[in-house]
Amino acid sequence: MTKGSITIHATTVTTRKLQNMKLATLTIWTAVACLFWLTAAAETSGKPNVVIMLMDDMGWGDLGVFGHPAKETPNLDKMAMEGMQFPDFYSANPLCSPSRAALLTGRLPIRNGFYTTNGHARNGYTPQYIVGGIQDDEVLLPKLLTSEGYYSKIVGKWHLGQQPQFLPLKHGFDEWFGAPNCHFGPYDNVHTPNIPVYKDDKMVGRYYQQFSINRKTGESNLTQIYTEEASILLKPKLKCRRRFSYIGPQIPHILHCMPQQDSWVLAREDCKYGDAVRELDDSVGRILQKLKDLGISNNTFVFFSSDNGAALYSKVRGGSNGPFLCGKETTFEGGMREPSIAWWPGKIKPGQVSHQLGTLMDLFTTTLSLTGAKSPANKVIDGIDLSQVLFKQNITDRPVFFYRGDEMMAIRYGLYKAHYWTWANSWAEFQQGVDFCPGENVTGITTHEQMNYTAAPALFHLGWDPGEKYPIRSTDQEYKDVMDVIRKLVSEHKSSLVPGEPQFNVCDNAVMNWAPPGCEEMDECYKAPPSQPWKCTWPH
Amino acid sequence: MTKGSITIHATTVTTRKLQNMKLATLTIWTAVACLFWLTAAAETSGKPNVVIMLMDDMGWGDLGVFGHPAKETPNLDKMAMEGMQFPDFYSANPLCSPSRAALLTGRLPIRNGFYTTNGHARNGYTPQYIVGGIQDDEVLLPKLLTSEGYYSKIVGKWHLGQQPQFLPLKHGFDEWFGAPNCHFGPYDNVHTPNIPVYKDDKMVGRYYQQFSINRKTGESNLTQIYTEEASILLKPKLKCRRRFSYIGPQIPHILHCMPQQDSWVLAREDCKYGDAVRELDDSVGRILQKLKDLGISNNTFVFFSSDNGAALYSKVRGGSNGPFLCGKETTFEGGMREPSIAWWPGKIKPGQVSHQLGTLMDLFTTTLSLTGAKSPANKVIDGIDLSQVLFKQNITDRPVFFYRGDEMMAIRYGLYKAHYWTWANSWAEFQQGVDFCPGENVTGITTHEQMNYTAAPALFHLGWDPGEKYPIRSTDQEYKDVMDVIRKLVSEHKSSLVPGEPQFNVCDNAVMNWAPPGCEEMDECYKAPPSQPWKCTWPH
Repeated sequence: MTKGSITIHATTVTTRKLQNMKLATLTIWTAVACLFWLTAAAETSGKPNVVIMLMDDMGWGDLGVFGHPAKETPNLDKMAMEGMQFPDFYSANPLCSPSRAALLTGRLPIRNGFYTTNGHARNGYTPQYIVGGIQDDEVLLPKLLTSEGYYSKIVGKWHLGQQPQFLPLKHGFDEWFGAPNCHFGPYDNVHTPNIPVYKDDKMVGRYYQQFSINRKTGESNLTQIYTEEASILLKPKLKCRRRFSYIGPQIPHILHCMPQQDSWVLAREDCKYGDAVRELDDSVGRILQKLKDLGISNNTFVFFSSDNGAALYSKVRGGSNGPFLCGKETTFEGGMREPSIAWWPGKIKPGQVSHQLGTLMDLFTTTLSLTGAKSPANKVIDGIDLSQVLFKQNITDRPVFFYRGDEMMAIRYGLYKAHYWTWANSWAEFQQGVDFCPGENVTGITTHEQMNYTAAPALFHLGWDPGEKYPIRSTDQEYKDVMDVIRKLVSEHKSSLVPGEPQFNVCDNAVMNWAPPGCEEMDECYKAPPSQPWKCTWPH
Repeated sequence: MTKGSITIHATTVTTRKLQNMKLATLTIWTAVACLFWLTAAAETSGKPNVVIMLMDDMGWGDLGVFGHPAKETPNLDKMAMEGMQFPDFYSANPLCSPSRAALLTGRLPIRNGFYTTNGHARNGYTPQYIVGGIQDDEVLLPKLLTSEGYYSKIVGKWHLGQQPQFLPLKHGFDEWFGAPNCHFGPYDNVHTPNIPVYKDDKMVGRYYQQFSINRKTGESNLTQIYTEEASILLKPKLKCRRRFSYIGPQIPHILHCMPQQDSWVLAREDCKYGDAVRELDDSVGRILQKLKDLGISNNTFVFFSSDNGAALYSKVRGGSNGPFLCGKETTFEGGMREPSIAWWPGKIKPGQVSHQLGTLMDLFTTTLSLTGAKSPANKVIDGIDLSQVLFKQNITDRPVFFYRGDEMMAIRYGLYKAHYWTWANSWAEFQQGVDFCPGENVTGITTHEQMNYTAAPALFHLGWDPGEKYPIRSTDQEYKDVMDVIRKLVSEHKSSLVPGEPQFNVCDNAVMNWAPPGCEEMDECYKAPPSQPWKCTWPH
């Protein structure tokens, strides 16, 4: 779009070795027979398998192909060379639960309810004491794929609510191996229960118990288990169907879980985060190789991304957001821009880079488009269909809105980004050593109080200033021309917005994972305390 | 190296269209005949042509392959895929002249005299009023290659002194097309003469006059001229010889010179710096293609790098140092780490990444090794031979010393970097708006006064902390173990160091480019003022 003289546009993971648990034996021959059937069917119908790999807190700059100097992701770099890179791809939120809910609903958290009104512009999520979760009137991607005959599996982190009514099999998934919440702990099962691990609709153990994580060494077998689970692309006992796989490992999130039995030679040695990145890279490589070995890579659309930017408040031995400002929890580029790659041999030409502005919500719409499934009736969808980009490099002109809790903080349009509100984190938190922007200080922008720029948004040109360091002067003609366009987009967006019922307002220890389904068989049921709901507090 | 439980290790450019000048006509058939001769000879002897491309102020993060989100360097990215990336490669100095002198002598500026003692830890260089320059007792790479029958050409920036005795043809080069100083100006030829452009040992014009640069639009044909000059790999009138080409374009330095007749579609549109990067990328692509077309790519070792980090004090529309701290003029990673790629089809395996710690001075030693030329007698050489890395991925364990003027500021060894001194720039300068670390603020490190850490160096682990944000606590065992090793290396280095005669101490307007050789024929001689030497002041 051109306005005056200003040109705005340019444009892992389930069990190598299963530890402390039993897996149903694979009927290999049935699987092989099914594969041939599936391949033929998919080729005929043109409908692909879909695999979405969503990392936990991996930063844009953690991949070699996106500039990490350790260059420790050979498999992801190869995936990028064989597919299409999306350097301008965004999360839907700088925090995990809202981001994941947005991906699966195609809708901004402000619409699907994954936010809080307990404070202004505060990030909420789904710790196990949250009462809310994904509502029945939100229609999730796997549910929509059912009518097209897809069989859907989620491996890893759910994070859309841990109460039974919110769990994956209630919302369209056919299979699950993973956990409803983050892998925090270990807990004592008295004041707080350890987080359960589910197989389908039943608990099969708890973190730090049946699924061990060594907090001291960072060791765990989880990613290996997930990779194996993800690799079981067809469930032999079912009749063969096309597959939607949603793979969400728990790493490289701060409790870096690296395997006991393997080691990676690290360029950032002595670094658990680097171990986790290497392990994920290896897992991605194994899954893509599996698709090739099975002869179904030409029928499978794979997308790799992350739920939000790297958590810089981890301080050391953490992730990298490359040249971008700040990280997780913020709506600066470091919190929102994700390392994203599309891969589909034979369909997506190798070695491409697209500057399409994309969001995780586009994976919802794109998957509907690729599979022929229908969008839910009467729902505003924020995702767009990327298939024209994937196959024809046709860029779609669209704004991207950056929310933090209940507030629209910023908007990106073309190469410009306008901040209506900015802040990093509160003074109180900062003084306790929590810093969302360590070593960075952009005057008036990376502040510890909320800055209201709605009257005169802080405007940045992300082309020549990807680090959001040099606000464009509001007296410049460029500012006026660009803001004329942006204000209209914001006005349209806000005027039609109907916020959903906020899910992160009420907390209650009674809703924690005391007695998940299946706990009886394992003797892992604990007594919930009486319900005492409280108004959740969100410091960020 | 393991100490206790701590593991420490782990250009382009001369005339698509020649503007305002005449070039000698090429005798194409002689050139073609020569090429066959050269190819055969080189294959027999195993001695390659050598092409070093050294950019001016290009940052580590400016290349797509090193993570620039604009991904606007397809030719360089391809070069990296076909060759070997060096993500841990350093300049010898955070400023141009010392860096270039170090490359051509294989010696640190503190040894070859490219520093000042007029102030502590101050960057000096060679503006046209500098009296000093490269001394006769320093032996430059092209001189050493003479005995092996090499014919050497420099295209672009010299920067080793502009007085006649310092010029390239006095120090071993057979040909030159370019300029002795930066392309600053325009000047009035009364108080200051415009910088001359030389062909061999004679001026053929001046910047802003015969060689136009439009300061307002940034337009210039220089890089195109350089690319054409660099492409003339053989001078037909000479008998065919192996070739050493040293290509130093004047961009993407702040006076971004982009061509009038071409345009590049930019991801960071409306950005002169981006234009300059695209133009360089295009030039590199054309030169590599030329080598392939001539059938001599298998006999040619090419190395791409930059003289120092991107100049962040340019504030806007400038370069990127990726995830690294600060930029040009500083000894933080952003000032010293360079985007470096080696390329030699058939000899260097494609798609490799080496974490060898390298410096521009290694290009001196490596070229000697590849060509069979001898190292100069009685000279301490700081460069190491990288050929074992290039051909066998054998890493050489070595420290890298970071100097600013007369002071050893820091040392990198393995994945660690210890700062003995730190500072960004002075308060006085900073308060005038000059900022070497815009938007960045690492407490006690990016300071505006010189910080003396010699008693307890500020130690960083560049593996998990490439941005130099989290000093390792001096009470940690890791600190003690690492510093035990590092202190010994520093002690050895310092005890044997004999500083050269500093060349940046005396300035004098009389030595400016008033009447370079050849000026008479062009009527471009101006009268020098009487000699009035002064003690140069270096604010940085």
